[in-house]
Amino acid sequence: MTLSRVCYDCGARTNAPVARCDCGEPMWLETDPEGFDWDDCSDEPGMWRYESLLPISRPGGIADAAGGTPLVTDAAIDAFAGTNVHLKLEGEHPTGSFKDRGSALGIAAVAAGLAGDGSAVGTVSHGNMAMSTAAFAAAADLPCVVFVPDDIPSERLAVIDQFDPSLVTVAGEYGRLYDETLRLGTEHGIVFLNSDVPLRVEGQKTTALEICEAFAPDVPDAIVLPVSSGGHASGVWKALRELHEAGAIADVPKLYFVQAAACAPIAEAFDAGADEVTSVVAGETIAYSIANADPPSGTRALRAARETGGAVIAVSDDEIRAAQHALAVDAGITVETSSATALAGTKRVVEEGTIDPSDHVAAVLTGTGLKEASTAGSPTSGDHVELPALGEYLTEFTGHAD
Amino acid sequence: MTLSRVCYDCGARTNAPVARCDCGEPMWLETDPEGFDWDDCSDEPGMWRYESLLPISRPGGIADAAGGTPLVTDAAIDAFAGTNVHLKLEGEHPTGSFKDRGSALGIAAVAAGLAGDGSAVGTVSHGNMAMSTAAFAAAADLPCVVFVPDDIPSERLAVIDQFDPSLVTVAGEYGRLYDETLRLGTEHGIVFLNSDVPLRVEGQKTTALEICEAFAPDVPDAIVLPVSSGGHASGVWKALRELHEAGAIADVPKLYFVQAAACAPIAEAFDAGADEVTSVVAGETIAYSIANADPPSGTRALRAARETGGAVIAVSDDEIRAAQHALAVDAGITVETSSATALAGTKRVVEEGTIDPSDHVAAVLTGTGLKEASTAGSPTSGDHVELPALGEYLTEFTGHAD
Ligand SMILES: [Zn+2]
Ligand SMILES: [Zn+2]
Repeated sequence: MTLSRVCYDCGARTNAPVARCDCGEPMWLETDPEGFDWDDCSDEPGMWRYESLLPISRPGGIADAAGGTPLVTDAAIDAFAGTNVHLKLEGEHPTGSFKDRGSALGIAAVAAGLAGDGSAVGTVSHGNMAMSTAAFAAAADLPCVVFVPDDIPSERLAVIDQFDPSLVTVAGEYGRLYDETLRLGTEHGIVFLNSDVPLRVEGQKTTALEICEAFAPDVPDAIVLPVSSGGHASGVWKALRELHEAGAIADVPKLYFVQAAACAPIAEAFDAGADEVTSVVAGETIAYSIANADPPSGTRALRAARETGGAVIAVSDDEIRAAQHALAVDAGITVETSSATALAGTKRVVEEGTIDPSDHVAAVLTGTGLKEASTAGSPTSGDHVELPALGEYLTEFTGHAD
Repeated sequence: MTLSRVCYDCGARTNAPVARCDCGEPMWLETDPEGFDWDDCSDEPGMWRYESLLPISRPGGIADAAGGTPLVTDAAIDAFAGTNVHLKLEGEHPTGSFKDRGSALGIAAVAAGLAGDGSAVGTVSHGNMAMSTAAFAAAADLPCVVFVPDDIPSERLAVIDQFDPSLVTVAGEYGRLYDETLRLGTEHGIVFLNSDVPLRVEGQKTTALEICEAFAPDVPDAIVLPVSSGGHASGVWKALRELHEAGAIADVPKLYFVQAAACAPIAEAFDAGADEVTSVVAGETIAYSIANADPPSGTRALRAARETGGAVIAVSDDEIRAAQHALAVDAGITVETSSATALAGTKRVVEEGTIDPSDHVAAVLTGTGLKEASTAGSPTSGDHVELPALGEYLTEFTGHAD
């Protein structure tokens, strides 16, 4: 059995377990949200409380720990961004990123036989998605193959390897691998849960369901998130469409997607008023995990931003660093550089006047900084004190602190 | 204003903001759980739903993200341990460990002026507690001093430093520093939230509140957790005492605390039938973050294990490694080595016949493996494939997978 798919763009439908429409655009799952109401949320843990909007129910195991992430506010962050910011802490996931939502749903669907002949899973990733897919596949006892680029640092390889997937470094143009695996996976009975495929997008939709439920019966004025492949962005958009169709939200929040300026194909297409996203030559950025020069769901994300009245913007590495620093020293929140773009982007749209200081904005902090903190921070030696001089040190400390 | 304290051992009371009783044993906060019922839990996020059992209410900011961690089961882990295991995922905290509960409560109490003259905070730690305290202090805008040992790896220093505390490496006998800071802190108006002080223990108590509520109206047969200073163990015991006193639990779960064999002063005292824990000379263990040779709440933890009918046990590094590996490859859960002792200990007590195969055991996985995964994993190079050979590789992969 498979779940039927529909093209957001041309409306074509299929029961084949494909990721792409004949028109070239990505498919997503066909769902029927009619009649959904917030009261229909169940008592199941995490993202499974929205089971009436999902193709499967709570699968058990680590998948039960996906979703249900905190949404917090901090006055200093509001001051930094110039508006009311609600921080969605996606780092509080089993493998530390939002990817766990898509992995949880996608792998459970494969395990339940809902993905055609697929009885194994795979992915193509540099980091977060590789780790997430490997972990959830291990828990579901499904064979898992993970393709990573040749030049991945060995520490990151070890992090993925702890879940014991078939871990493969790939020589050759890494970008091409994304489509190649989707094609070959179908032939080999391996469901590649790459970042914008229907099953992953369906799980990623729960980020927005949680945000909207937290604001119900109101809605946030905007949701801001980093964009890379466009998969998460598409999932968030799909959630808003379903909620609006069901009548569970009266207004649709504006969607703002943020890229790093050095690699911003979707933002460039948005600025140019283009109908489609075309690939760019990527420059270097500290937000390496969203530096996707040829985003497979770029055009879909572009559409989501336009249709909700939002935008796709690009921020500089300096803006990203400033946001990451503010989150740490003002709010006690450690995020990876890519995630800091959500706050940097929020600040930018406020400065540009698109978002009002009185608005309420949900900024999605997609991943924890715990994985990269040891390398991202500037090395420090700290102060140094000999034990007998402790009292003296504290006198000086409180003197400064006053 | 301060919160009154009582000695679990001699019953002495004080309104002074002290950590130790005149009898030498650690104090904890005096509370009045009478009349508490699970229905009294509020709709506040995370640990703040138990505000009727806590000295303060939800403080806002990142503190709102403390607690509310998942409790999951996995059939393969049940098979590994030989009983019904409920895994409490404390890694899903802002800074990746259970320490955030104590930091959230302790720092909010200081900010609210409930800790005497204290208007700054500090701690003495190798890792998790340093990071947690620094993060929550940054969010609460309180000055924070963190003392770390001289020989801390520079990556770990950078992780703590991102929250910009006054970070101080200390020369001299690191163990003495714990008591010295408690004494000097009072003089200098700095509240040292060391691992077994009353304010931290009060926050740590919420681990057990969440576990018990998940089982209500039943109770788990046992709760198993790593023990180091004995602070977390004391908090869990305090929660059970309060719940039992209030009549919210009919039976008290047995408490099992687990140490690494190379540094097991509490387990040795338990085995010897001693009334007090005495310090040991620590050996090397992979569970470095619980290798406390002179645990300040060791005797209190010993008492907790005895009075609940549990035990304090020691497991070898091999047992810890096996548990850590099982969690990763069978359940998709990454934990730090110290946390894996909870599962290793559960397996051990089942083998010893203390816990039945039909029992239900909550094992507290105290911290994420994301911080140390890059160094703990055995280095791997993975397989390697050239892009044109992808289909061939997948054929071989599915052949093996079948
Ligand atoms: Zn189409
Ligand atoms: Zn006493």
